Amino acid sequence: MSDHTHYVIPRGFRFAAGKAGLKASGRADFALIVADAPASAAACFTSNRVQAAPLAIDKEHLSATGGRVRVVAINAGNANCAAGEAGLRAVRETCAAAARVFGCQPEEVFASSTGVIGVPLPAETMPELAALLSAEPGSFHDAAEAILTTDLVEKVAFARLRVAAGGAVGEVRIAAFGKGSGMIHPQLVPHATMLMYVMTDAAIEPVDLKAHLGSAIDVSFNRISVDGDTSTNDTVLLLASGGSGVRIGGGDTAFGAALNEVCMSMARQVVADGEGVSHVVELRISGAATDADALRVAKAIAHSPLVKTAWAGCDPNWGRLAAAIGYSGAQVDPNRIDIRFGELPICRDGGRAPEFDEAAAHEYISQNEFSISIELHQGAGSCVFWTTDLTTQYIHINADYST
Amino acid sequence: MSDHTHYVIPRGFRFAAGKAGLKASGRADFALIVADAPASAAACFTSNRVQAAPLAIDKEHLSATGGRVRVVAINAGNANCAAGEAGLRAVRETCAAAARVFGCQPEEVFASSTGVIGVPLPAETMPELAALLSAEPGSFHDAAEAILTTDLVEKVAFARLRVAAGGAVGEVRIAAFGKGSGMIHPQLVPHATMLMYVMTDAAIEPVDLKAHLGSAIDVSFNRISVDGDTSTNDTVLLLASGGSGVRIGGGDTAFGAALNEVCMSMARQVVADGEGVSHVVELRISGAATDADALRVAKAIAHSPLVKTAWAGCDPNWGRLAAAIGYSGAQVDPNRIDIRFGELPICRDGGRAPEFDEAAAHEYISQNEFSISIELHQGAGSCVFWTTDLTTQYIHINADYST
Repeated sequence: MSDHTHYVIPRGFRFAAGKAGLKASGRADFALIVADAPASAAACFTSNRVQAAPLAIDKEHLSATGGRVRVVAINAGNANCAAGEAGLRAVRETCAAAARVFGCQPEEVFASSTGVIGVPLPAETMPELAALLSAEPGSFHDAAEAILTTDLVEKVAFARLRVAAGGAVGEVRIAAFGKGSGMIHPQLVPHATMLMYVMTDAAIEPVDLKAHLGSAIDVSFNRISVDGDTSTNDTVLLLASGGSGVRIGGGDTAFGAALNEVCMSMARQVVADGEGVSHVVELRISGAATDADALRVAKAIAHSPLVKTAWAGCDPNWGRLAAAIGYSGAQVDPNRIDIRFGELPICRDGGRAPEFDEAAAHEYISQNEFSISIELHQGAGSCVFWTTDLTTQYIHINADYST
Repeated sequence: MSDHTHYVIPRGFRFAAGKAGLKASGRADFALIVADAPASAAACFTSNRVQAAPLAIDKEHLSATGGRVRVVAINAGNANCAAGEAGLRAVRETCAAAARVFGCQPEEVFASSTGVIGVPLPAETMPELAALLSAEPGSFHDAAEAILTTDLVEKVAFARLRVAAGGAVGEVRIAAFGKGSGMIHPQLVPHATMLMYVMTDAAIEPVDLKAHLGSAIDVSFNRISVDGDTSTNDTVLLLASGGSGVRIGGGDTAFGAALNEVCMSMARQVVADGEGVSHVVELRISGAATDADALRVAKAIAHSPLVKTAWAGCDPNWGRLAAAIGYSGAQVDPNRIDIRFGELPICRDGGRAPEFDEAAAHEYISQNEFSISIELHQGAGSCVFWTTDLTTQYIHINADYST
């Protein structure tokens, strides 16, 4: 566990991982986060009208407690979605079991699932992990790893900030782990197969926590797409234990900035580990009539199979970008569109830029990560969005089926 | 040419094909349709805000003539889109050249292009084909073949109907040729890389022709998607020569039904020849709150990479369908969704149907063509939509780039 010593673990939380028997591989598929005392909690869930069973129960519980969570119980390998009454029953039983073990109310348990949709979750999926719980980086790592599905790498992010309050200076820590690789186009409401757990030891009231989470999501998880498929399970949970003794309000910009950085890091890690991805692309849209229009353009590009396959082939075929911009629904003047790959001029005033250098453009987008800037000259709307190419590997991952 | 004797060629039109030097393969890439006398014309174009140069000129011309066309000049291999003033100039020069050759006004010439976006079209792309023009099926076939790009097969459809009018019985013929394989999600307005030319020898006024075309498009070309990319060049042109001597009004249901059949046949041919397609899927959505909601559900499914890759793998993973239905934006009760593959019950009341038989479901969707029915129990809205799977071959076709 010595290889995780750079992890910054917020005080007031313990972690454990184990096996509930849901992954065909037989690997760990269950993770626990346990707060020493009820933590302030704020959560965002998918906007998909079809939602997994745990999301319904989680909303019920957060409402009942006014935003307090003691235990987070996460399984990977089964989404517990489209599973009817049996699915809801399985969640309630898991929460009841956790409440018995940790001496809290069932309403203080937050459950998450990720995996295959439409297969009922076995009723008892709560391995005995109490003895394993610890605040060590290694346990945090074990939990982060247990919830992965088609992910290739663990996704974690950390921040610490020093806060002067009431004459004293305290340190606030933020840590996050999460998963997500395919069915990634989170549209979270204030917006999974994306599951994100962000913890801080700041003391923050649930209402303030909610405000911070809403702002952070708007520049991170709601600005990414791998395949445009919005999951039934997407969940982002932010917990504040108060273990630092530092009180943070809803308008604290330093804490907000640190939280944004952690969430943006996690969002980029999800994209970078997207199913079959060989290129990560940053889209910088500017000059749109509104921010909403900028987002429309970014999403049209991010969801265009022709654009994404061109990227997979390192093909500087900017005409496909122009087509996607055109059908995005955003206000566009076709003769005022400028496109750059990094600093390279590609398209100006809607036509091929005079300086267009095909070989240089090809070389630029042959990099694993690159940036495309689009200026629409319609107004002050803008956004930054992260997405991926579409490769034969994505097809293999999602089309391979054995009867 | 004897192998095209079953073609039904409307009277009043002649056809020819030749080489303008735009296809790297060196194959024929230019087609002409010439009406003996100015034909009534109605056209629909892409709703993409970025539109190819010929579309701008075509709209100008149809407006100037009140819907009359003598010559249709089509090139394949260059989309003449995002090519600025030079692109517009190239179209005007082509129209002027055609007008000189055929003794008509430049405004009576209708130009189309399909191919790569962002590369200026050479100014002179009008091969000398006047001597080749004929009304023979073989010439119709040559024209239909010359406009293909990544298409693997020619797309044609024919209909004939007998019409009793004024004591006499006349025969009206309808014929269509067209192309389209990738960048296929036509959204034609009243809705390119899809080009469709439908000809009839009925005598129909332009205003009535427009009404018939609008109705036909709504059940055909606006109900298909290969990749969700709406092209900059999509064009459907309907010409009526009057050569049959039979007059048809805007409300003629027999003619309307025949035209719908021809357009639906062409739409299905485009989907069946979609880039890399191994499965053609008919989506039958019913019980939606509105027809618009039914279409939202169909499009969400048709554009979901996860659904499309599951089809490619013959994987009866209906959870991905449920997820797409959920994020479609349509009014949905997650507990009232029924899904059938053909006649096989798959999902009932939002959960796995008790009769669900995975092996049978897998076998059913292993067919090259299959049907999926979705009942939402929300109202009387419905639609039928045709789409495709997403295969590694699609990626190869669109990602292969050689510097």
